[in-house]
Amino acid sequence: MVDPIDPTATGFLLAENRNMPMHVGGLQLFEKPEGAGRGYVREMYEQMRDVEQVAPLFLKHPHRSVRTAGQLVWQPDEQFDIEHHVRHSALPKPGRIRELLELCSRLHSTRLAWERPLWEATVIEGLRDGRVAMYTKTHHALVDGVSAMRLLASVLSTDPDERNMPAPWALRPRAPRQQRPSDDGGASLADVSAATVRTALAIASEAAGMPGALVRTLNKSVRNETSALSLYAPRTMLNQNITGSRRFAAQDWPVERLRAVGKATGTTINDVVLAMVSGAMRTYLLDMDALPETTLVSMVPVGLNAKQSQLASSDGGNAVGAVMVQLGTHLADPADRLTAINTSMKDGKDGLSAMTPTQILAMSALGQAPAILGPVLRMQGIVRPPYNLIISNVPGPRTTHYWNGAKLTGTYPLSIPINGMALNITCTSYDGKMCFGLTGCRRTVPHLQVLLTHLDDELKALERAAGVR
Amino acid sequence: MVDPIDPTATGFLLAENRNMPMHVGGLQLFEKPEGAGRGYVREMYEQMRDVEQVAPLFLKHPHRSVRTAGQLVWQPDEQFDIEHHVRHSALPKPGRIRELLELCSRLHSTRLAWERPLWEATVIEGLRDGRVAMYTKTHHALVDGVSAMRLLASVLSTDPDERNMPAPWALRPRAPRQQRPSDDGGASLADVSAATVRTALAIASEAAGMPGALVRTLNKSVRNETSALSLYAPRTMLNQNITGSRRFAAQDWPVERLRAVGKATGTTINDVVLAMVSGAMRTYLLDMDALPETTLVSMVPVGLNAKQSQLASSDGGNAVGAVMVQLGTHLADPADRLTAINTSMKDGKDGLSAMTPTQILAMSALGQAPAILGPVLRMQGIVRPPYNLIISNVPGPRTTHYWNGAKLTGTYPLSIPINGMALNITCTSYDGKMCFGLTGCRRTVPHLQVLLTHLDDELKALERAAGVR
Repeated sequence: MVDPIDPTATGFLLAENRNMPMHVGGLQLFEKPEGAGRGYVREMYEQMRDVEQVAPLFLKHPHRSVRTAGQLVWQPDEQFDIEHHVRHSALPKPGRIRELLELCSRLHSTRLAWERPLWEATVIEGLRDGRVAMYTKTHHALVDGVSAMRLLASVLSTDPDERNMPAPWALRPRAPRQQRPSDDGGASLADVSAATVRTALAIASEAAGMPGALVRTLNKSVRNETSALSLYAPRTMLNQNITGSRRFAAQDWPVERLRAVGKATGTTINDVVLAMVSGAMRTYLLDMDALPETTLVSMVPVGLNAKQSQLASSDGGNAVGAVMVQLGTHLADPADRLTAINTSMKDGKDGLSAMTPTQILAMSALGQAPAILGPVLRMQGIVRPPYNLIISNVPGPRTTHYWNGAKLTGTYPLSIPINGMALNITCTSYDGKMCFGLTGCRRTVPHLQVLLTHLDDELKALERAAGVR
Repeated sequence: MVDPIDPTATGFLLAENRNMPMHVGGLQLFEKPEGAGRGYVREMYEQMRDVEQVAPLFLKHPHRSVRTAGQLVWQPDEQFDIEHHVRHSALPKPGRIRELLELCSRLHSTRLAWERPLWEATVIEGLRDGRVAMYTKTHHALVDGVSAMRLLASVLSTDPDERNMPAPWALRPRAPRQQRPSDDGGASLADVSAATVRTALAIASEAAGMPGALVRTLNKSVRNETSALSLYAPRTMLNQNITGSRRFAAQDWPVERLRAVGKATGTTINDVVLAMVSGAMRTYLLDMDALPETTLVSMVPVGLNAKQSQLASSDGGNAVGAVMVQLGTHLADPADRLTAINTSMKDGKDGLSAMTPTQILAMSALGQAPAILGPVLRMQGIVRPPYNLIISNVPGPRTTHYWNGAKLTGTYPLSIPINGMALNITCTSYDGKMCFGLTGCRRTVPHLQVLLTHLDDELKALERAAGVR
């Protein structure tokens, strides 16, 4: 049995090399349920491992041979070995978050083997606060970062007493878990199926399949200087070739604090996220004596509703576009940076909705697959980076969720740095927290952890500027 | 500053691919010194990490560019990051040897990045018996398995009270540690410098550089049917293409038990090692219904003294040859297998000493670099495997050694499975123990751990056959 691989997934597979593994990751932290025994983590691991049947997505691997005429196809792994995929690990003492991030950095640095289905999950014990961590890794050819996290969330429940819940890779009767009445009906991850987000990839795949359209968009952008596509990002230390080794940092802040700043300044929570990153990057680059005179530009993926994009797929999925946001890193005042971001983001969204569907498709491709499109950009003589870094903000469930009684206390995304784009910052909101995941090339982005301190400082500065602290 | 890379090392670098990482490993187990506090392992890790100066071997990485005319050269890593190389990890509960071997299997499966010096070391805590483990990984382009272990051993002491001892990668005033009067003067690893064993590689490199000589040797071997080079090994499940994932198993047995069998049967300890493997492989393949009708053939590297080989290098190093030993796996009786091995080994050594230096060079190349020579063999229309597996036995120190008071209780080698040769068994003797390290492709050699049980059963069977039990 052989499945064709769509062009985008093929692109991600072929773009991969030892310096640029193409997998996304997720780090989840769970509190053990009350009454959990000494062997709780092992039992949790065994429950994850001993699934009755694994879902087809997690059983297929890429294959290419003379028989497939050299084309990459999906093939079921006839010698599927769950112990290779579901792993059990531990932190050395003292078991701080620091040791956890160090382990996740290492796990995220190694490449998935094509001989096997393209995913791994590691249950991690030894945190001194007693929590259990889970790191998951899935190839971008299977899912993107958002859908990987959504897939995981889709097996969670708002009911702390529910048991016999499946692992994310278990075959379930209905793919997306049904919305529970107890849920607040908000932006729950549970109501978005993997298939939905897959649509974004499918769309990107079409675009990737038509470089002509993309090139036209790029040319227009150069002439129009639309802020939706900036071709005038400065060169920075982040915009170099990368190595295969990663560094990961993660932390969360109360959404309430970001909301208060937004409310007081007439900006959005997302603007405040971008302003936090802007201030943190400014401090980071100043410390390295590497701050460019002009503003850093961030690529920010934005969701487009069906009407806006005219791209709704048959299953009601949303299209994803990308806005190039000027972060105002050249401005010394936090309030000025927030204002600049708010304006740039509005302009970008306006520009985006004024684009033709084909242009949005191409933008989407740029956002989803810059690694694939790199050569196309170079071909067009565009040698400066189209943007300096990627900042995504993915809404998650607003209420507390559980897996077999274990309370999920935080969920942090690990993304894909690529050549020329050594840092990726992805946030996800969950249960009143804004969870930041920073993934960088270990060599190109030194002292990545210090950005967490800078982010914290910047939130305080924004609070002072907004008069809410 | 740029160093050329010798042809063999270049060969190992170029032969490497994602399914066939070309690094050797070592697993060492230490007992904490008396009075070690709770933070002992962290202190040990920090002592390993915080070296004053790193030796040049551990600072260089391979580099190729237009400036080097496309040639691979060694280049110092200008951004050397010791934390990338020296790591601290832990085992999940219950912290059995099983969890340790699982972790080592995983660590051994990932490839070293060329952007950095080609080595890693992981200090591992969490063994329930309180011991500390250390896994080291070094690219075959830097050292071979034997010299990697010797290098490690070269920083050990027979004095349990010695402190302030350097890490293996620290720059030391004199490269090989001086022989201590307290040492027994036996086959101590400490008296063999890395440079000595490097010689074997240099010799192999010459041979690898002259396929003509090799091909002549191969042709002669086919005509002469010399047992030193068997081209008549049967096809087995081990002789397939491999994947990049590894499984590692390790165990030790008292050398005294092997010696008693040898003494009673007029065979050597090395013959008994081979007989243990022979019986274990027979049981393993029978269980899988995959035992070939003719005997398995093992490649066994043997040391040649200077006089015998006429190949002594200027620094007195030994040349390494390879004997193809018929393991007698088709024979049902353990005593018959041991006799067959003893005969085949003698014939092989005789054949080897009768070979010309050039032929021995070529044999050496075959042993050291079958991965490189694979294409050459295929070119000659030799489609059957030249042998079925590799079994090495490397003598180690006979007395108890310490690192800063921590007693080394065992040392186990992890080797390199290659395409067509999915299993490698390397033994090293240490302090009265024969330590076996079995490294296999996780997919091609299923249930590798069961071989440990079979090895144990076979030693008992040999003892019964020899009348010593």
